[in-house]
Amino acid sequence: DGNIKAGEAKSAACTACHGQQGKASAPLYPDLAGQNAPYLNHALQAYKKGERSGGQAEVMKAFVAGLSDEDMADLSAYYASLTP
Amino acid sequence: DGNIKAGEAKSAACTACHGQQGKASAPLYPDLAGQNAPYLNHALQAYKKGERSGGQAEVMKAFVAGLSDEDMADLSAYYASLTP
Repeated sequence: DGNIKAGEAKSAACTACHGQQGKASAPLYPDLAGQNAPYLNHALQAYKKGERSGGQAEVMKAFVAGLSDEDMADLSAYYASLTP
Repeated sequence: DGNIKAGEAKSAACTACHGQQGKASAPLYPDLAGQNAPYLNHALQAYKKGERSGGQAEVMKAFVAGLSDEDMADLSAYYASLTP
């Protein structure tokens, strides 16, 4: 499983759209706080594998391009640990 | 915007994976309760337009194939109205 502390340290880039405590800055973006970690990891992997396309997905692809599997697991654990 | 009551009536098929109150039946699936309605609608449209592919997305595509824009707006409003 991912490391929450490590995930928090890696989440700076995410806050622009997903907000400080995982509450989206605009309703077109998903809240991540308290979401299921395996799902979050699945979604990050899907963006990295190019399984999601279209507008918003292209932005996410740019963000996840540089993430390792460990980074994705840590980020997933971090956001899952926040209160929805 | 979508109609919450109508969305609830249309949500029977979703409960298998997304649970009774929008709390996923397995952690590989996302919780939907309290998620942002515009994002939920965006995701449903993405599945319908084939912008999401791979394993799980193929299942979702089958579910949304028969949904109208109104159905998607109603379902989004319903799940957004639930307590996370």
